[in-house]
Amino acid sequence: MTTPDWAKHAVFYQIFPDRFARSGAVEAQEAVQLTPWGTPPAEQGFQGGDLYGIVDRLDYLDALGVTALYLNPIFASAANHRYHTYDYYEVDPLLGGTDALRALLDAAHARDMRVVLDGVFNHASRGFWPFHHVLENGPDSPYVDWFKIEDWPLRPYASDQPHNYAAWYDIPALPELNTDHPPVQDFLLDVARHWIAFGIDGWRLDVPREIETDGFWEAFRTVVKDANPEAYLVGEIWDEAPAWLQGDRFDGLMNYPLLDATLGFFGAGSLRDYSKAHLTFDPIDAPAFADELDRLLALYEWEATCAQLNLLDSHDMARAQWILNNNPAAFRQAVLFLMTMPGAPCIYYGDEIGLSAAGDPHCREAFPRDDADWDTDLLSFYQAATALRHRHEVLRTGRIEVLHASGRTLVLRRTLADATALVAFNAGADAVQVALEAAALPTKPLSSAWPPSANAPLSASSSPLPLSLPPRATRVWTTD
Amino acid sequence: MTTPDWAKHAVFYQIFPDRFARSGAVEAQEAVQLTPWGTPPAEQGFQGGDLYGIVDRLDYLDALGVTALYLNPIFASAANHRYHTYDYYEVDPLLGGTDALRALLDAAHARDMRVVLDGVFNHASRGFWPFHHVLENGPDSPYVDWFKIEDWPLRPYASDQPHNYAAWYDIPALPELNTDHPPVQDFLLDVARHWIAFGIDGWRLDVPREIETDGFWEAFRTVVKDANPEAYLVGEIWDEAPAWLQGDRFDGLMNYPLLDATLGFFGAGSLRDYSKAHLTFDPIDAPAFADELDRLLALYEWEATCAQLNLLDSHDMARAQWILNNNPAAFRQAVLFLMTMPGAPCIYYGDEIGLSAAGDPHCREAFPRDDADWDTDLLSFYQAATALRHRHEVLRTGRIEVLHASGRTLVLRRTLADATALVAFNAGADAVQVALEAAALPTKPLSSAWPPSANAPLSASSSPLPLSLPPRATRVWTTD
Repeated sequence: MTTPDWAKHAVFYQIFPDRFARSGAVEAQEAVQLTPWGTPPAEQGFQGGDLYGIVDRLDYLDALGVTALYLNPIFASAANHRYHTYDYYEVDPLLGGTDALRALLDAAHARDMRVVLDGVFNHASRGFWPFHHVLENGPDSPYVDWFKIEDWPLRPYASDQPHNYAAWYDIPALPELNTDHPPVQDFLLDVARHWIAFGIDGWRLDVPREIETDGFWEAFRTVVKDANPEAYLVGEIWDEAPAWLQGDRFDGLMNYPLLDATLGFFGAGSLRDYSKAHLTFDPIDAPAFADELDRLLALYEWEATCAQLNLLDSHDMARAQWILNNNPAAFRQAVLFLMTMPGAPCIYYGDEIGLSAAGDPHCREAFPRDDADWDTDLLSFYQAATALRHRHEVLRTGRIEVLHASGRTLVLRRTLADATALVAFNAGADAVQVALEAAALPTKPLSSAWPPSANAPLSASSSPLPLSLPPRATRVWTTD
Repeated sequence: MTTPDWAKHAVFYQIFPDRFARSGAVEAQEAVQLTPWGTPPAEQGFQGGDLYGIVDRLDYLDALGVTALYLNPIFASAANHRYHTYDYYEVDPLLGGTDALRALLDAAHARDMRVVLDGVFNHASRGFWPFHHVLENGPDSPYVDWFKIEDWPLRPYASDQPHNYAAWYDIPALPELNTDHPPVQDFLLDVARHWIAFGIDGWRLDVPREIETDGFWEAFRTVVKDANPEAYLVGEIWDEAPAWLQGDRFDGLMNYPLLDATLGFFGAGSLRDYSKAHLTFDPIDAPAFADELDRLLALYEWEATCAQLNLLDSHDMARAQWILNNNPAAFRQAVLFLMTMPGAPCIYYGDEIGLSAAGDPHCREAFPRDDADWDTDLLSFYQAATALRHRHEVLRTGRIEVLHASGRTLVLRRTLADATALVAFNAGADAVQVALEAAALPTKPLSSAWPPSANAPLSASSSPLPLSLPPRATRVWTTD
């Protein structure tokens, strides 16, 4: 299989559009009552973030080392998260409408930044026009086969009786689309094609496993790649799913299993009692982490592994800082781990300035406007961490091996052609010495690449090579 | 006041889009189950007429003498009549979508045919996205002021409890727009401007009296005329409404009062027992008809009178043929009366081939595909009648006077500069002789203009001039 090269080299930034930045330039917002920016997030309430606001922040994102955006849904929706789509062909008016997406794509592409949208194709909203059509016309509606209806009359809004059609998670607001009905497939494939042709660089696919129609996702890939062979397809699948990364469906998955182990290893000792779906965030030591890493790396072809979307958190879970009980050292090591792994790291908006919050809806808070409210040290750290990844191709697509795993210490080697990197983590509270075999080291000299201020080369002159790692230290050496 | 010249000279044709012509070219129709073409019309059911179908029929309409189309609503809607709008910025997909309107406008304009759309701005549908928004978010929705909501939670679909928001005619499917809320005004004015800029030639305004917001219709006129000074604005007001035709709102009204008197006079003796709104279709004689004509002509400035939309029926009432109990002579005289009146005659689709049906939904039947099902004699008559109007400007914009009204006989004079026309109707079953004063006749000779085959000029050589009118005869003489 082949996956888009740009994705392997990307640093993603995930944006929850209602909460990242408000431009003040959206006329449709004049017409409505918004919740003030910074209100503690609740299930309802729009705070007025918009796509022009993202355009205004592109300098900031550039400086952060971001090369690709992943936006939570932006199509017309009555939900602040916009997973309840009512019009798949229009960007939500409160986000600035389709013109604002045009502006964002043009501005992002002008700086070689890509934009991936969230595709929600398993279910629509009660306000999606074909559902409205069925609601108004009952069995006489020509759209009756677009949904999975159990009996009549439909009850989408009855508080005292259950809904009587298939709905995602049994939420009446989210009628499932009948993807077994060919016209529905045609509709969704046209939406997929339409926005790729409009200029987006890929799709993150929401709950794709719930669409079980034979051949749907294969057809989806064909349509998308025909429109743009470089488009990136990443699925929201929370566990291992080798069948989905064999070249005929997605390029990568949201790498939740890696996230679970990453926070479990670097956060061991300070983890909150938190779980989400099948992620349990159990404390693990380096050997267990190394085993899990080996297991995960063996699941997929290398092309897919390099195109995974590696993350520490998302809009669907507590922020990593919060799970780590705001342990800054653990958090920074987890960030560096992501920046030195194959697979594209994805920063959830605001993590880089210290946002820390429990799960949905808390983790969807407004990005603070005033930088006095930012952790600017953390922001500088993030900038340096993404720069490290961008500087060394070997950290992005070099083959990976565990050289050493014991206690709280993990040493990894990355190799790409004649380039080598050593990446060492001491996640413990005590200094450690690791003795590396000289044979594990390249003949070319290794310069220090991390921390940015360090200037301690590593050479294979003595064997075994003693590696000194202070408490909570991360060290990277590279030959290039 | 000034009104668009083209409207004064137009022959309109009103189309109920789901039922006029099906092109077979609308892909969205492949996705749905349609009711077969020609099914007796019911409240629900789509038969698949579309805008490309109208394009296919433009030769037919040209030959009929039609120079302007008035289309019942075409924006996205879950109702076959499409008065329940869910998206004001999209043409309904089953009609071919916005691309089909582009094609229709281009094809119509290429033959100097105008297109007027139906604007439904007092109310939307339950599926209109801001209403959906309020439904999903309750009092937290930023669109809460767009409607007139009485309490929470909203009950748009509860069968056992009344709805709790203002709705047109208390129909829960039709929430009223709160036009007192400035953003709603801005929205509607933008819709008005948008489609005029897109290329339509005017708006027929649905139930305009129900929008009582001060200055709304004045602003509407300004926006529309700014976008196209030649745009035509015609209001659906069923009775007299001089305040609406003073130059600051509409150019004309749907002339239902004239329709009532016209069918009452020409149909006297064969009228069915039918009424609609305040139209009672009472049989009247020529003096009563002449009085009503004089009264109606005195209501408005001449500019407005010439821009009235004169009709015999519409989608909102029984067809004229049916009201007249299929009396062909009465029907043809009524048609000729409209063709010789100031104000643009409007043919309701299918009247010209003999469709005859009771009120809604029956009068919204599919136009027969097979011309074996047409009354082709009637069609030829219509072609001749529109040609008569087009041939003689005096019949369109000439001043009008009643020369004679007695029993079942009415004689009218039209004058425009040095042109004169005499129009005489004998709506009775007996031949009559009318003695016209020579002073009432022009010095220029009068040639016979109707019936088409006649060749009997009229001259003022003798006085009084005896005018012989056979039973149910219509005669027209003109100087030009």
